[in-house]
Amino acid sequence: MSGIEVLRDDVSLDAPTLIEGLPGVGLVGKLATDHLAETFGMVHYANVHCDGLPPVATYEGGDRELTTPVRLYADRERDLLALRSDVPVSPAAAQEFATCLSEWYTDGEVTPVYLSGIGRERDEEETPALYGVGIGEGSERLAAVGIEAPEESGVVSGPTGALLSHAVRTGRTAVGLIVESTPQFPDPEAAARLIEEGIAPLLGVEMPVDDLRDHAEEIRRAKRRLARQMQEAEETSSQARPLGMYQ
Amino acid sequence: MSGIEVLRDDVSLDAPTLIEGLPGVGLVGKLATDHLAETFGMVHYANVHCDGLPPVATYEGGDRELTTPVRLYADRERDLLALRSDVPVSPAAAQEFATCLSEWYTDGEVTPVYLSGIGRERDEEETPALYGVGIGEGSERLAAVGIEAPEESGVVSGPTGALLSHAVRTGRTAVGLIVESTPQFPDPEAAARLIEEGIAPLLGVEMPVDDLRDHAEEIRRAKRRLARQMQEAEETSSQARPLGMYQ
Amino acid sequence: MSGIEVLRDDVSLDAPTLIEGLPGVGLVGKLATDHLAETFGMVHYANVHCDGLPPVATYEGGDRELTTPVRLYADRERDLLALRSDVPVSPAAAQEFATCLSEWYTDGEVTPVYLSGIGRERDEEETPALYGVGIGEGSERLAAVGIEAPEESGVVSGPTGALLSHAVRTGRTAVGLIVESTPQFPDPEAAARLIEEGIAPLLGVEMPVDDLRDHAEEIRRAKRRLARQMQEAEETSSQARPLGMYQ
Amino acid sequence: MSGIEVLRDDVSLDAPTLIEGLPGVGLVGKLATDHLAETFGMVHYANVHCDGLPPVATYEGGDRELTTPVRLYADRERDLLALRSDVPVSPAAAQEFATCLSEWYTDGEVTPVYLSGIGRERDEEETPALYGVGIGEGSERLAAVGIEAPEESGVVSGPTGALLSHAVRTGRTAVGLIVESTPQFPDPEAAARLIEEGIAPLLGVEMPVDDLRDHAEEIRRAKRRLARQMQEAEETSSQARPLGMYQ
Amino acid sequence: MSGIEVLRDDVSLDAPTLIEGLPGVGLVGKLATDHLAETFGMVHYANVHCDGLPPVATYEGGDRELTTPVRLYADRERDLLALRSDVPVSPAAAQEFATCLSEWYTDGEVTPVYLSGIGRERDEEETPALYGVGIGEGSERLAAVGIEAPEESGVVSGPTGALLSHAVRTGRTAVGLIVESTPQFPDPEAAARLIEEGIAPLLGVEMPVDDLRDHAEEIRRAKRRLARQMQEAEETSSQARPLGMYQ
Repeated sequence: MSGIEVLRDDVSLDAPTLIEGLPGVGLVGKLATDHLAETFGMVHYANVHCDGLPPVATYEGGDRELTTPVRLYADRERDLLALRSDVPVSPAAAQEFATCLSEWYTDGEVTPVYLSGIGRERDEEETPALYGVGIGEGSERLAAVGIEAPEESGVVSGPTGALLSHAVRTGRTAVGLIVESTPQFPDPEAAARLIEEGIAPLLGVEMPVDDLRDHAEEIRRAKRRLARQMQEAEETSSQARPLGMYQ
Repeated sequence: MSGIEVLRDDVSLDAPTLIEGLPGVGLVGKLATDHLAETFGMVHYANVHCDGLPPVATYEGGDRELTTPVRLYADRERDLLALRSDVPVSPAAAQEFATCLSEWYTDGEVTPVYLSGIGRERDEEETPALYGVGIGEGSERLAAVGIEAPEESGVVSGPTGALLSHAVRTGRTAVGLIVESTPQFPDPEAAARLIEEGIAPLLGVEMPVDDLRDHAEEIRRAKRRLARQMQEAEETSSQARPLGMYQ
Repeated sequence: MSGIEVLRDDVSLDAPTLIEGLPGVGLVGKLATDHLAETFGMVHYANVHCDGLPPVATYEGGDRELTTPVRLYADRERDLLALRSDVPVSPAAAQEFATCLSEWYTDGEVTPVYLSGIGRERDEEETPALYGVGIGEGSERLAAVGIEAPEESGVVSGPTGALLSHAVRTGRTAVGLIVESTPQFPDPEAAARLIEEGIAPLLGVEMPVDDLRDHAEEIRRAKRRLARQMQEAEETSSQARPLGMYQ
Repeated sequence: MSGIEVLRDDVSLDAPTLIEGLPGVGLVGKLATDHLAETFGMVHYANVHCDGLPPVATYEGGDRELTTPVRLYADRERDLLALRSDVPVSPAAAQEFATCLSEWYTDGEVTPVYLSGIGRERDEEETPALYGVGIGEGSERLAAVGIEAPEESGVVSGPTGALLSHAVRTGRTAVGLIVESTPQFPDPEAAARLIEEGIAPLLGVEMPVDDLRDHAEEIRRAKRRLARQMQEAEETSSQARPLGMYQ
Repeated sequence: MSGIEVLRDDVSLDAPTLIEGLPGVGLVGKLATDHLAETFGMVHYANVHCDGLPPVATYEGGDRELTTPVRLYADRERDLLALRSDVPVSPAAAQEFATCLSEWYTDGEVTPVYLSGIGRERDEEETPALYGVGIGEGSERLAAVGIEAPEESGVVSGPTGALLSHAVRTGRTAVGLIVESTPQFPDPEAAARLIEEGIAPLLGVEMPVDDLRDHAEEIRRAKRRLARQMQEAEETSSQARPLGMYQ
């Protein structure tokens, strides 16, 4: 069986928004999506069996049931899907996933919001900048809630880049949120900002992010290994990069 | 000829349990399965010819007959199959094997029990913890005999991960037993524990493990080379790993 | 969707010339083409979705709309197309692109002008030499405007070599302009020369290049990273090389 | 043309035995087979064109005719075939060869005897042990002439392993002879033993091996380069290895 | 368009001989073939578009016309074809080329003469030995003009080995000339000898080689880079090697 295996037919969604949280540079997407899923108590909605994903099985503490490492979580109330992964995903696998996903729903039924960090050191008191990019009706959705266009030209690579590239190629609606994040460490502050200024306005919901800020140091320590893994895989890890005035 | 070649049509089995003992980290699965096969005097039941397995031939001391390096052994009395391998098996080959196997029996006819270590140093007097995970009716079987769910979230990789992943993908019943084992050395104590607390209850049989404990030092010495080989192939060797609270 | 996706059906062209500016040694093609596009205010005409291009998405500063990293720009007035890329392109991808492109127009409808540097150190007061090569009606076009044949035998490799090779293979009209450029640094002077003595006469237009000369040092600094990247990928980066009298 | 190209239709054979002499660890198989072919004056019977063999051409001193690097030699009188190779053969190519061969004759028409060394240092006065393994009617043929079963369990890898594996997979009759040989040097003494105690009894012929013993030092020196090549390619070179009591 | 593209239909040939001059160890084949083409004023007869050749385009000094890097030159008077390459060719590409070529003419219409060096140091006054090998009617052609068989057994590898191997496989007529050459440097003396004692007698023509001898030092210097490239690619560069009495 290849594709999206829905486990919860009882959860009905109506043109939901899909927040993508694959591990990338600074782990901003993963931190934000995991926070979202936990805060809203999202339910494990579907297993993802797309070709190219690593052949491993995962389990949650306290539960004997095995699952796929990449899964969709759902929140019926907020009409929301979250894509979570326990493992790094290669851009090639992300391309397969994009195809899987696009076979699963028709354009417009789901609005994907892809998340990426853009590496930039910042002082402690600085606020990381947030930009929105899109394709199809994505740009309009961003404009409607006042998320700014990027100041500089740039390129998004890695699995998130592959997902956005697939959207550009097929002309499907998609939104990309890009937040400045420290390149070397997990960046809970950037994830918090991503939620407050990007995801929350897009969804039209309130979402507390105090946890991310209060436990920033703890999170940073705990996630350091995964962040370094992402950092080392610069080639394949999701990130946006400025092209510069003269590239 | 690709697939499972049954050599003993005279051995009739009725919905048997299959214990998998491919070499993995700590060699716990292999030690336990080899012990099982020897203790019960299981007979060489089938040769495994699945694509992806190394093109080598094996023989047993005192016997001129050549066999495949991966074989099934059977115990008619206890309705039991054991999967034994003389060579390391790659996850890709394990995926092929899972397909071979699933073409050989229909879901429910055979209940596979896949074995994995999860690396953790322990003091001499400590008892290695054992967890059970499953898919399909696997979880129920574990609950029925009181094998606990894992405390922490985790991921099973390597050939055993590939076998479990195949089960998740196809929705077939499978059980996974995960035992704490020393990552660097063969761990007969963990294998003994795996049998006593996992395999024996699942099978509803008594199985002495004194041999494993009495000859622990000897076994460790003899198997060190294979264990190191598994250790070095961290990427592809079967093992469970905790995902951690924040991964 | 694979191929050339025209975004501006309102821009009608009549047998246009296509200037190729993929990043190569000395960045001469990219510098010249970017200068061309900016000077003439060329409009983003088409996205390029050919197989083999990196699965990334790009955006421009001040604009939320996502695009492909390789794009065509058009100038209706001068009947001109420019191929611009934000990312290095492998020769394999260039072969795919050549196929894409040749499926998009029939021979003669578009005249491609491929640009390459040929590494040679020069003193400050020296003028970099420029040569023209071609296939089909390409040679005649060069002769008509007096662009000289190369003095020495040579070979063009990298993506530009792949594009020219495709033209030779299919017998389609194509022009190649080869300019001496410093191998290690971006060479705005060579790009200026390429425009003045090659592109402008071919197009029969006037094109100021003062900007390239006035900001040479600034450009060199800004583009150094990309130039180095091209330099390191000697195998795959576009460049012409002399074969020498005895090779 | 892929397959076995018989050059000598005038040489008629009746259910011949095929001795395989591909280069492997200790070169025992090659030394024995080359000795056999020279002693019996076997004629160049067929060229082997199987896919996977290196695309090279070979010639013999004093002869202008080009041949394939892998060839079959025949002895009509003794109903014998010898497989000789001038180049190392990878296990993958050996698998192709096994398929080629099995398409060329039907089971039982040819009895292949595959040769392998098993690395073990020995004192000068020691005699290298010899074991026989088989599949199909192979074991019976060994028993009939009193060639002993191996004492310890083991695995045969490399091209010879691939050939034996193919026989196991297809259930065709095949014999394997395994002789102890020094792992690092060519071992003419082991090759002599292989002939005296293995090949000669199986064929029911007398075969002098004095040459191998008298020129042992000379042979060792001359073949050292090829032996080292085999030694370095431990992964792919034919050899048997003990699995050990506990592997 | 894949295959041989004839550019000069006006040049009619009648069962021509084809001299192959791909770059190999010592560059003997290339030096000899280039000398041949220049001495006889051979015309650019065909472009070679076979798959596997590098996707580059070449040009000659003083000429704007682009060509393929591998080309055939013809001499109508002497009924001669010369295969020349501006780039190293891999054995895999040579296999493709052999297939291309064999689809272009039927056996017997063209007699290919493949050239290879066999590395051997020699004193200044020594004359490099020359041998001929062949398949089909090749051996007879060699015998007819008195070119000797090789003294020792040997193997020809690299692109020339692939071309000869293809001839052996398909049973087509082909000739191989093997000349002793210094392995590390371009060897104009060996190329001269190859022409005088091999190519000239086979073609039944006179061919001055004074140029090669008079400018030996100059040629050596000029070609050193290409020779070293060939030397480093020992695996894939054309060369013959002795198998030795005991290999």
